[in-house]
Amino acid sequence: MAQKYERDATATRARILEAAAAEFASFGIAGARVDRIAENAGANKAMIYRYFGSKDELFDAVFSTHVVAFVDAVQFEVADLPAYAGRLFDSYQDLPRTLRLTHWYQLERPDGPPLQAIVDSNDRKLHAIADAQAAGILTSRYSPTELLVLVRGIAMSWNNLTPELDLQSSEPRQKRRALVVDAVRRLMLEPVEGGWSPARTAASFPMPDLI
Amino acid sequence: MAQKYERDATATRARILEAAAAEFASFGIAGARVDRIAENAGANKAMIYRYFGSKDELFDAVFSTHVVAFVDAVQFEVADLPAYAGRLFDSYQDLPRTLRLTHWYQLERPDGPPLQAIVDSNDRKLHAIADAQAAGILTSRYSPTELLVLVRGIAMSWNNLTPELDLQSSEPRQKRRALVVDAVRRLMLEPVEGGWSPARTAASFPMPDLI
Repeated sequence: MAQKYERDATATRARILEAAAAEFASFGIAGARVDRIAENAGANKAMIYRYFGSKDELFDAVFSTHVVAFVDAVQFEVADLPAYAGRLFDSYQDLPRTLRLTHWYQLERPDGPPLQAIVDSNDRKLHAIADAQAAGILTSRYSPTELLVLVRGIAMSWNNLTPELDLQSSEPRQKRRALVVDAVRRLMLEPVEGGWSPARTAASFPMPDLI
Repeated sequence: MAQKYERDATATRARILEAAAAEFASFGIAGARVDRIAENAGANKAMIYRYFGSKDELFDAVFSTHVVAFVDAVQFEVADLPAYAGRLFDSYQDLPRTLRLTHWYQLERPDGPPLQAIVDSNDRKLHAIADAQAAGILTSRYSPTELLVLVRGIAMSWNNLTPELDLQSSEPRQKRRALVVDAVRRLMLEPVEGGWSPARTAASFPMPDLI
């Protein structure tokens, strides 16, 4: 009996989180309506408040779940940042809901607290980059943070299109993705006497097919 | 008498637009309250509806004014896209209100109509890039649209920081700006036999201080 109750509660929570994700992604935090979430989840408002506390706390639950899942899903490989950029690009394209949640968060919670899971994930990436730089398999031209910022900025660049430029550009997705990978690859190249070359220990680093 | 009336009307419209810009930047389209705008503008709601029609049309007026002013303010020089990227970076930093309006627009008006002034401005830039490529003073590795997308993506990359990475990075603004300019400069380099070189007619193109 207690087991069945628990199973039902878990299923209800999941339905509420799913309906809430759709609602928050569409309307943001201020614009979201708890009664609409309840209706779409086949639940009632009292249940939502009992399980999650408040609309704001429900948003927190949705947001952290999505963002952490997003970060976990995009494999990070320090020896191949161009490929990582390509995977980031894919996720931005395939998970517009997560992206919208992130944008609402930035607008409506400009001083929102950092998520510890994300801080930890960034820390791991930044340390891996620093180690790869020390080992000579990654350019030391940029600091670890700068590298991560550039990779993400370039991977995101097609999402930052104004509606105007979006209408004016007809590149198919594969071509957009290739641009992201190519640009990051070129920024990884080390300046050497007389020109540019890929990083020293090229075995662990994909050779750019540039020339 | 008619002149004084017109002067007052112009001043009132300007005050309404200013108050509306602050309100929409803070709360978005759905979240904005016309009575708050009226109060902050020292006007009344009836005036706002008479001058602008509706809350949505008031947003349109605010948005197009800000976006067109933003685009006009950032000088575009096809022979020096790295410098253009630096100026874009400055504007993103200095005009957070315009950036917020843009983000609200993207979230709340995903199918919003393109602004003709922006389409025209993009067209001019895309043609200038194509001409510079044909003249050999700009890399032909990327299409004009791709170049513009990359330059904007990189210039915007510090604005796309997650709150977590923002807390984890301590680069001062000048260093952030220098990264943007450097990254764009390196992407402008042409691959040549045995390495990389700046574009052919280097006189009109700033030599990168890379090696």
